[in-house]
Amino acid sequence: HSLLPHSTERTKNAVLVNGVILNGPITDSKAGEKFVEDACKIIMEEVIQKAADVTEKVCEWQPPEKLKKLLDLEMRDTGEPHQRLLQLCQDIIRYSVKTNHPRFFNQLYAGIDYYSLVARFITEALNPSVYTYEVSPVFLLVEEAVLKKMIEFIGWKEGDGIFNPGGSVSNMYAMNLARYKYCPDIKERGLSGLPRLVLFTSEECHYSMNKAASFLGIGTQNVYFITTDERGKMIPEELEKQVQRARKEGAAPFLVCATAGTTVLGAFDPLDKIADICERHGLWLHVDASWGGSALMSRKHRKLLHGIHRADSVAWNPHKMLMAGIQCCGLLVKDNSDLLKKCYSAKASYLFQQDKFYDVSYDTGDKSIQCSRRPDAFKFWMTWKALGTTGLEERVNRALALARYLVDEIKKREGFQLLLEPEYANICFWYIPSSLRKTEEGPEFWEKLHQVAPVIKERMMKKGSMMLGYQPHRGKVNFFRQVVISPQVSREDMDFLLDEIDVLGRDL
Amino acid sequence: HSLLPHSTERTKNAVLVNGVILNGPITDSKAGEKFVEDACKIIMEEVIQKAADVTEKVCEWQPPEKLKKLLDLEMRDTGEPHQRLLQLCQDIIRYSVKTNHPRFFNQLYAGIDYYSLVARFITEALNPSVYTYEVSPVFLLVEEAVLKKMIEFIGWKEGDGIFNPGGSVSNMYAMNLARYKYCPDIKERGLSGLPRLVLFTSEECHYSMNKAASFLGIGTQNVYFITTDERGKMIPEELEKQVQRARKEGAAPFLVCATAGTTVLGAFDPLDKIADICERHGLWLHVDASWGGSALMSRKHRKLLHGIHRADSVAWNPHKMLMAGIQCCGLLVKDNSDLLKKCYSAKASYLFQQDKFYDVSYDTGDKSIQCSRRPDAFKFWMTWKALGTTGLEERVNRALALARYLVDEIKKREGFQLLLEPEYANICFWYIPSSLRKTEEGPEFWEKLHQVAPVIKERMMKKGSMMLGYQPHRGKVNFFRQVVISPQVSREDMDFLLDEIDVLGRDL
Repeated sequence: HSLLPHSTERTKNAVLVNGVILNGPITDSKAGEKFVEDACKIIMEEVIQKAADVTEKVCEWQPPEKLKKLLDLEMRDTGEPHQRLLQLCQDIIRYSVKTNHPRFFNQLYAGIDYYSLVARFITEALNPSVYTYEVSPVFLLVEEAVLKKMIEFIGWKEGDGIFNPGGSVSNMYAMNLARYKYCPDIKERGLSGLPRLVLFTSEECHYSMNKAASFLGIGTQNVYFITTDERGKMIPEELEKQVQRARKEGAAPFLVCATAGTTVLGAFDPLDKIADICERHGLWLHVDASWGGSALMSRKHRKLLHGIHRADSVAWNPHKMLMAGIQCCGLLVKDNSDLLKKCYSAKASYLFQQDKFYDVSYDTGDKSIQCSRRPDAFKFWMTWKALGTTGLEERVNRALALARYLVDEIKKREGFQLLLEPEYANICFWYIPSSLRKTEEGPEFWEKLHQVAPVIKERMMKKGSMMLGYQPHRGKVNFFRQVVISPQVSREDMDFLLDEIDVLGRDL
Repeated sequence: HSLLPHSTERTKNAVLVNGVILNGPITDSKAGEKFVEDACKIIMEEVIQKAADVTEKVCEWQPPEKLKKLLDLEMRDTGEPHQRLLQLCQDIIRYSVKTNHPRFFNQLYAGIDYYSLVARFITEALNPSVYTYEVSPVFLLVEEAVLKKMIEFIGWKEGDGIFNPGGSVSNMYAMNLARYKYCPDIKERGLSGLPRLVLFTSEECHYSMNKAASFLGIGTQNVYFITTDERGKMIPEELEKQVQRARKEGAAPFLVCATAGTTVLGAFDPLDKIADICERHGLWLHVDASWGGSALMSRKHRKLLHGIHRADSVAWNPHKMLMAGIQCCGLLVKDNSDLLKKCYSAKASYLFQQDKFYDVSYDTGDKSIQCSRRPDAFKFWMTWKALGTTGLEERVNRALALARYLVDEIKKREGFQLLLEPEYANICFWYIPSSLRKTEEGPEFWEKLHQVAPVIKERMMKKGSMMLGYQPHRGKVNFFRQVVISPQVSREDMDFLLDEIDVLGRDL
């Protein structure tokens, strides 16, 4: 249907090469536009409007083998007609999780931001790649403006940066950059024959630290994990000890990765004290603020990141609490000597020609490990333009006030027990069914409690009423982790959440 | 405007925490939906419909400093109103390059595919992250189905794979996987103290090979570049020599990266002969088919990749010739012993719990270097559903027939000179202005010719009539590289291209 020849155009001076008529375009653009229009109506009704409606299901759960049968996944020799394709779109949406539903609390992202959504639609329609000014003039300038603003909020006078596909990749960028700074020769010579490079991060860090160390050839055993206190914060004295241990072993310490907003507990490492140690030992300080960085937008809460201006690099994902859409991740770098470019450039002659007619310093693509790269900064820019700094601040303040409200409710309710007093928007708690409330907190109690969250999760998924995550963590049995982000969420949703857990788990 | 309180809802049982009223959602969803609707109209008219119109400009060129003034880039304390935001959307679109314009030939992507575009809109509205079945049930199954089909087209009986952000990153995945296979200990122990790992690729390979080698700690000097023949294909005998050289040096050869469709010349390495050498020496064979992989869809042209079924891994970007939208990149792996997972997994307890109520083998996110990951396979799936294999094949056949037509026209026209007979959709040629046509091909000729393409490029950008790239390459002075992809493109556009170069450069 989309490939029907335009018969009138195509018969004039027809040119045939290898059996293909080359006159006129073969795309039926009217049919294509009609499909986009019809699909956009479905998206508006079935995703965007339903996102505001708490009476809708968060997901319509189906187990994998059954879902495969419900969806017509097979790709065939011939294409499907218009109506059938629209039906497929509806099925795709129907069985997908509505991460923009007000009761989706399962990950470190949630909700819908209408402004970033529009930016993302524009991006998809224009389909740019951000490497050279000639193909992405607007998006390169937008990225520059957004990086500059983020750098300002970190508290640096100047700096550099790059948007990239995720906090994990940002951490890799930083690790490689710190290594390059430590020994620029590694870019050419590699690690073979060099002393063992060692980096330090807390036990509560994101799992991407291990992924990065293995991917970069450093090796996971050269990630030294620093003990944390009872709130999940790195203990600076332990860091000091581990750095000294590494030196004694003859290894080469080069990097400390602190975390601002850990994934599970939402803990913030004491950046100022860690910076002192880094300074003393000449170590690069990277702060993984993928999750916690957004607190910088709030005058009330930015003290959580006190000392961040002393970092050498920062990872910060506006796609998390600031709802810019997956993915929107900045790596920010304090250096102003073009280190990012020196470390990453490969000077491809077919992209980064030096005899262009404009200022080629705007061709920033060579700072990247990618070639094609999406204009992720643009989504954040659009939201920032729409809400202003004040609006973004209000979102952060509200999410953290809601988290505070939930904590207070948990303390009031029988059968709910906090793991710890949260600093941020992660509220970790156990639900203790009445059958366990009188049991002593011994091995049997914990073993039974460990099995509670998975059952409640199963029931909640099958009912579709809400989604929140659970996990065991560092010796603690399975507990729920509620994450508050979206401004669609209200106190009523917090109340619902606790009521619903009780409804789902009462009989356990 | 988007943060106005819903006054009626919010006064009932108002709860105030830290100065924030927590009742009711604070998002004005009606205003948000209206903005999305209005913006979608602009996108339809200004991007999607104009994409079909050759009389529109490909870009409205402005130099960086002027464009900064024309765009209101600054992010302020307060947000902008609805109408102003719509104006910003229009400005963004106006000054962006229309990569979907039929006369955009500048990169290895072009055109608009209405079906993948709809998939991308759905993705953005649902905002999923593809790591666990519980949050991305549909998209994980879609990815599985697409990978399976791509594996079938490569010619493997079974295999594994992962979609990731780009061909460069796919090549990194493969390099790390080959290294893991060579010595699994590296994941934990790193490269320090190991013999020098060496990999082989052709002189014409993508620049990401160097980026990958440096990022992975292997070092760019351990990438041994193999001489190519006059068509840009790796010479197998030279590969054999280099492998032997590396062995003599006491290094550890572990990987050959062949290229199927080089970036500049569009050359295909002789995979079958290279596979023989890899087999003989026990080397992992990776094929970077980021660009050329799409020829596998065509029964007529898949012979370009003869022998690809013997590869251990393949990078293939459907976002290039198959127009799935940036980014859509599969890394495919022949291994069926779960190597990808063993190599990449970090077993994050908060995502990959083993006590879930469904089959957790569907939680494929731990194969990735990313944590959050976009459902890129879905865009390709939607196009495949819409066009069928036959429709995709027709696109490839048509693009290559158009390329053939252009080559024949270049040969016929005075002042145009092919660099080489192309195998694929890259047509590399010089335009020789009449002032140079009688000059002997000595140093002076080449020096003058080198300056022709940049001037024509500048004029074409400022006029906005079309976009194609130029580059110097391996001792050859600046030449144009025309890339044919989109089914919106016709013979008339090929004729226009040559006419227009002549119009723009005649006086040089």
